[in-house]
Amino acid sequence: MSNERFMTRAVELAYKGRGATAPNPCVGAVLVKDNTIVAEGYHTQYGKLHAERECLADARAKGVDPAGLTMFVTLEPCNHHGKTPPCTEAIIDAGIGKVVIGALDPNPVAAGGVEALQNAGIEVEINVCSQACCDLIADFLLWQTSNSPFNIIKMAATLDGKIASSRRKPEPVSGPESFARVHQLRRIAGAVVVGGNTFYADNPSLTCRQDALPANFTQPLGIVVTSRLPERPSDFTLLRERPSQAIFMTTEDAARSEAADILRERGTSVWPLPGPQGGLNLSIGLERLRYDRGCHYTLCEGGGRFAMALIEQGLVDELVHFVTPRILGDETAPAAYSGRSNVTMADTCDFRIAQVESTGVDIMLTLRKK
Amino acid sequence: MSNERFMTRAVELAYKGRGATAPNPCVGAVLVKDNTIVAEGYHTQYGKLHAERECLADARAKGVDPAGLTMFVTLEPCNHHGKTPPCTEAIIDAGIGKVVIGALDPNPVAAGGVEALQNAGIEVEINVCSQACCDLIADFLLWQTSNSPFNIIKMAATLDGKIASSRRKPEPVSGPESFARVHQLRRIAGAVVVGGNTFYADNPSLTCRQDALPANFTQPLGIVVTSRLPERPSDFTLLRERPSQAIFMTTEDAARSEAADILRERGTSVWPLPGPQGGLNLSIGLERLRYDRGCHYTLCEGGGRFAMALIEQGLVDELVHFVTPRILGDETAPAAYSGRSNVTMADTCDFRIAQVESTGVDIMLTLRKK
Repeated sequence: MSNERFMTRAVELAYKGRGATAPNPCVGAVLVKDNTIVAEGYHTQYGKLHAERECLADARAKGVDPAGLTMFVTLEPCNHHGKTPPCTEAIIDAGIGKVVIGALDPNPVAAGGVEALQNAGIEVEINVCSQACCDLIADFLLWQTSNSPFNIIKMAATLDGKIASSRRKPEPVSGPESFARVHQLRRIAGAVVVGGNTFYADNPSLTCRQDALPANFTQPLGIVVTSRLPERPSDFTLLRERPSQAIFMTTEDAARSEAADILRERGTSVWPLPGPQGGLNLSIGLERLRYDRGCHYTLCEGGGRFAMALIEQGLVDELVHFVTPRILGDETAPAAYSGRSNVTMADTCDFRIAQVESTGVDIMLTLRKK
Repeated sequence: MSNERFMTRAVELAYKGRGATAPNPCVGAVLVKDNTIVAEGYHTQYGKLHAERECLADARAKGVDPAGLTMFVTLEPCNHHGKTPPCTEAIIDAGIGKVVIGALDPNPVAAGGVEALQNAGIEVEINVCSQACCDLIADFLLWQTSNSPFNIIKMAATLDGKIASSRRKPEPVSGPESFARVHQLRRIAGAVVVGGNTFYADNPSLTCRQDALPANFTQPLGIVVTSRLPERPSDFTLLRERPSQAIFMTTEDAARSEAADILRERGTSVWPLPGPQGGLNLSIGLERLRYDRGCHYTLCEGGGRFAMALIEQGLVDELVHFVTPRILGDETAPAAYSGRSNVTMADTCDFRIAQVESTGVDIMLTLRKK
C-alpha cells in the first residue's frame, strides 16, 4: 500500500513537466526514508536534468544522505549517454539501496537500466502502479511510433450529458476550477481545435488565459474544422486578433474557394482534408499539425458532433470529461457526444477511467482507451 | 489532515449501519493512539449499543487501554438515558483524553454531550469533516422534522447522459460492481419506485438480489407511478410473483377504474394521487409509504422523466448517479433526466457532489441538495 502511495506521488510530480519535456517523456521520482518521502524531483524540461538527478539534487539540498534509501521512479532509469549522462550512474554513485520502478522503458536505446542497477547490487522492484506509469508515457510512445500529436479531447457536461441549453448560446457549464484546468491543458497544447458549430456559435478566441503566463509564451494555434468557411473573417475574434495563428481544416472544394483566398490573404492557413463533407479525415489534419507546426499535443474542445467524429475515427489519446453536478433535463439541448443513430448499448465507445479529480464543485475524469 | 483521515474512517463505519439503525441516526467512532486507529465501532442496529460503546468494547476485546486516547465520533455523544445509558458516561468512565466530534446533535433531548465531556475535564474538538458528518444524519433529521421517507434516486448513465439506446430495451448500462451497489441500496429501501415507462418497458421485479440475504429478509415493496394501469397484471413479473407487495400510485380517475379493481382483487394496492395526469403529487405517495408501510428509505430508480419530476418537486434527498465510461452518441436515446423544455443553463437543478467512489470500471457519485 505504501509503495502505491509513493509511486502515486512520483506520478503527480511527473505531470508537472507535461508539455515542457516533449518529445521526451514526463518522469517523476521520490526518495523514501523510514516510510516517509524525504526528497522529490521530476523532469522539468527537455534537455534538463532527468527526474532521478533532480531528486538526488533535492536530497543534497535538504542535507539528506541518499545512501541506502529507496528511490521510486515512474520510468526505468536510462542507461545511455543522451543529453545527460545515464541516470543509472547517478543512482549507483549515490549509493541508493533499492529502486522501485513504475514502467519499463519501451525505448530499446535507453533501456537496460534495471540490469545495470542489479549488476551494481541494487535491489530493483518493477511494475508498481504500472497502469498509471504507462499512461504517463503514452504520449511519448505515440510520438516514437507514429506521426500523430497526442490528441486530448476536452468536454464539460451536466449529469444529463448536456453542454449547453437548447438555445446553444455560450454559457458556462462547469465551475471556475474546471475552467482553470482547461487553461492548463491549453497551456501545453500546440493547437486548440474546434468544430464549425462551436466556432460559429461561440466565437471563441482559443487562447490560454492564465494569470502567470511567461513573457515569451506562445499561444496555441486556433484550429477550426468545418466544411463552411467564414465569409466575413473580421467578425470572429480569432481571425481578427491573431489571423496568422488560425488554421481552417476544410473540404478540398472549400479550400479552393474565394473565401479560402480571402482567409489566406489575411495570413490564415486553409488546409484541405480528404473525405466527404461531414466525414473529413481528421487524422491527416492532426498529423500535419505535428510535422508542419511542431504540435506535440493537440486539444480538441468541441462540440458534440466533432468529439464523436474524433472518437469514431479513433483519434482520442486522452478524454478529459468534466462532470458538473447540474441537471438541465431538456432532451433537445445539445449533447456532449452526438451524431450517431441506430446504435444499441452494444455499440458504445468504451473508455477506461484513468484518473478522478475534484475540480471545485465538479469532478474531472481523465479517460483513456480501454 | 490526520484528523480528517480518522473522521473519514468513522463516517465509513457509520454507513455500515445504514438501514438497520432507522429511525436512529448512523454513527461511527474510532479510537486513535499514536496517530493510528486502534479500535473501531458503529451503531449496528436500532436498540443496540451506540458507536462509542461499540468502539470501547472493540478496544477492550483487543486489549487496548482507552485511557488518555482520542476518540473520533461522527455525532456528538448522547447525554441522556434512552434505549441505552448516556455515551458520555461510558467515555468519561473509560478515561478518554480527547473527543473529536463531526457534527453536533440537532436533537435537544440527546444534546449536551459536549458540555458533559468538558465538565469531566475531557478536551473536545468539534466540526471535523462536518459536511460529511451532517450528510450522514440528513435522514435522521428528515425523519424528525417531516412525515417523509428519505428518498434516494438512483441513476446510471453514459458520459453522454444516456440510460438506454433509442430502442429502449433493458440493457445493462453500468458494470457489475455498480449493479451490486444498487442492490445494497435496495436492501435498505422499504420500497423501490419506478415510473410507468420503466415498468412497461423493462418489466422489472424490483427485488434486492444479493447472495447473502438473511433468511428473514423482507423484499422492498415494488411501487409503480403511472397514470395508466396494466390491463393484464399477470404479464408482469412484479404482479405475478408478489402482487401484495406491489402498489400503484396513479390518478384519482384511474384509481376508480375497473383495472384498479382487478389489481386490488389480486392483492395489489392502488393509491390515488392528487394532481393532473403527468403531474402527480408524488410527495403524498412517498409520505404514505412512510406512515402506512413504515418505509424509512425509498429508492426511485427511473426513468428519466420520473427522476426529473421528483427533482422538480424537490423530492430528492440523495441522488446516486453512476457514470459509466461509455459513449452512445445518439441524441434520440433516452436521457437520464428529461421532460423539461425551454430551459437555459441558468435553470439547471444544481446539486453538490458529496462522495465519489469507484465501482469497478464506473464511478458512483453521491449527490446532495446544494
